[in-house]
Amino acid sequence: MKPRPFPLILGHEGAGIVESVGPGVTKVSKGDKVIPLFLPQCGQCERCLSPKTNLCTKNWDKTQQGVLADGTSRITCKNQQIYQFIGVSTFSEYTVVPEDNVTKIHPDAPLDKVCLLGCGVSTGYGAAVNTGKVESGSTCAVFGLGAVGLAAVMGCKAAGASRIIAVDINPDKSEIAKTFGATEFVNPKEHSQPIQEVLRKLTNGGVDFSIECVGNVGVMRAAVEACTPAGGICVIVGWIEVEELSLAPLDILLGRTLKGTYFGGWKTVEAVPRLVQDYMSGKLLLDEFVTHRLTLDQVNQAFDHMITGKSIRTVIEM
Amino acid sequence: MKPRPFPLILGHEGAGIVESVGPGVTKVSKGDKVIPLFLPQCGQCERCLSPKTNLCTKNWDKTQQGVLADGTSRITCKNQQIYQFIGVSTFSEYTVVPEDNVTKIHPDAPLDKVCLLGCGVSTGYGAAVNTGKVESGSTCAVFGLGAVGLAAVMGCKAAGASRIIAVDINPDKSEIAKTFGATEFVNPKEHSQPIQEVLRKLTNGGVDFSIECVGNVGVMRAAVEACTPAGGICVIVGWIEVEELSLAPLDILLGRTLKGTYFGGWKTVEAVPRLVQDYMSGKLLLDEFVTHRLTLDQVNQAFDHMITGKSIRTVIEM
Repeated sequence: MKPRPFPLILGHEGAGIVESVGPGVTKVSKGDKVIPLFLPQCGQCERCLSPKTNLCTKNWDKTQQGVLADGTSRITCKNQQIYQFIGVSTFSEYTVVPEDNVTKIHPDAPLDKVCLLGCGVSTGYGAAVNTGKVESGSTCAVFGLGAVGLAAVMGCKAAGASRIIAVDINPDKSEIAKTFGATEFVNPKEHSQPIQEVLRKLTNGGVDFSIECVGNVGVMRAAVEACTPAGGICVIVGWIEVEELSLAPLDILLGRTLKGTYFGGWKTVEAVPRLVQDYMSGKLLLDEFVTHRLTLDQVNQAFDHMITGKSIRTVIEM
Repeated sequence: MKPRPFPLILGHEGAGIVESVGPGVTKVSKGDKVIPLFLPQCGQCERCLSPKTNLCTKNWDKTQQGVLADGTSRITCKNQQIYQFIGVSTFSEYTVVPEDNVTKIHPDAPLDKVCLLGCGVSTGYGAAVNTGKVESGSTCAVFGLGAVGLAAVMGCKAAGASRIIAVDINPDKSEIAKTFGATEFVNPKEHSQPIQEVLRKLTNGGVDFSIECVGNVGVMRAAVEACTPAGGICVIVGWIEVEELSLAPLDILLGRTLKGTYFGGWKTVEAVPRLVQDYMSGKLLLDEFVTHRLTLDQVNQAFDHMITGKSIRTVIEM
């Protein structure tokens, strides 16, 4: 993958209100509440028509390179072009996106909560319910308890898993994991054996489903090896471009499955508004992810909180 | 995995007739035609009761170490203990196996053909129909055209695949692959680009199903990368203990699935007799795999043929 161009406005998980629309736009109107989608759903390409993937190809290459379909970005600063991050750029008060890169949501939806459905919560939740297809009565392990991992825990619970083992090296995550449905918490730092061995012992041979929400190849391997060879499914969710995942072929050959998820497997345009409704009707937790609220000029502090593990999600209010 | 003990009688794909049974044996009787099963199906362990796996755990550890359940092997030569290979040892005129390690087959089954169902053909065929669950109208690639790979091609055809691309570095395999249902043959040596790129170009982005039947981690990686990220499924079949499989995490994360198969996912005791019937009723090819016939004292020649790619399967007649 090519490096992304700079300077660039980051931010890809947000919510907002349509300020104006360009000519030809029919899907949203001025005043609509929307969630920007870094993964569009054009509804017409081969992938949008396939039930097996949500990876709409529309403008993928362009948005990965920081520009819109016509090759330009629509943001400048002091006459210098500023690139847009994967088609959206939400760390800004205004942005310009193609109509396929937003989805209209319920007019009563609270933007400072449903913004979380723009990436992390949808991704983790979908990793469990769509990609892993976690089964009722199953045993699950979720590695990494940021918003994505906690949402995966919530997905395992929604799918009816009977044991949900939450794994993190930060002991402060134990309580919050239980809020989302974890039945157990395991801190790898409290064990001398590798975490996969600990989990296999705890579960008589391995979990039915493991979900990696870190973006670390060592954790991915542990997640694979923590699964039961009797049909265990490992879903990797964490994004990592710079390292390779190394596996013992027999760990797969003897019965494990390795899958991955991007935006939780959701067809974004239709699914995100449904997830908003699920939150509004109490089926999905969102408030519990929000540990901090800051203003846009404090955004770097939000990164610091994230890196040090102090925050789950910081909402940037504008 | 521990190294296997020596001296050892190899051979794990065969067919025979029960010469005698020990006390307590109820599932087979003297005179029954049987296929020895290196993967038993005790029918009682947790895995035998699970629909998700065929990996019966009965005596697994013992048979991997060359002995039967009681820790002894039943073969000696000049008073020295000879170990048994994964519970069977078919390169011998007589062997001793637990009753769960054989399955009774049709009394009219020709042993010199159905012996192939003791491993290779069942494995490759099942990799396509059971593990990959190849779909009607799909595009498939099969890497490595020994008996396992050719059987995988046959499985793809049985599942209704519309394109079956057979891949081997031996150009002699082109014709035989077509006998089993391949629609195309690609020789990686005839291309300057990596085979995965060649296949992605041939198929507008990647195959729906790829099946690796070599046991080489480079080929496994190619098989993963040859799949479409839009839900492509790669099944690894080749056995390799000494090297690791390295993958780019994003190749999985963006939508591919990696699976593995052992004995084609078949619950052996029930499935192998059904496969024998399928051969006898013409649904399954077996004769076409047999390129050579030798006697037991010529067994090393059979290995030479295999290594040099001259043979598909050599039947050792006793």
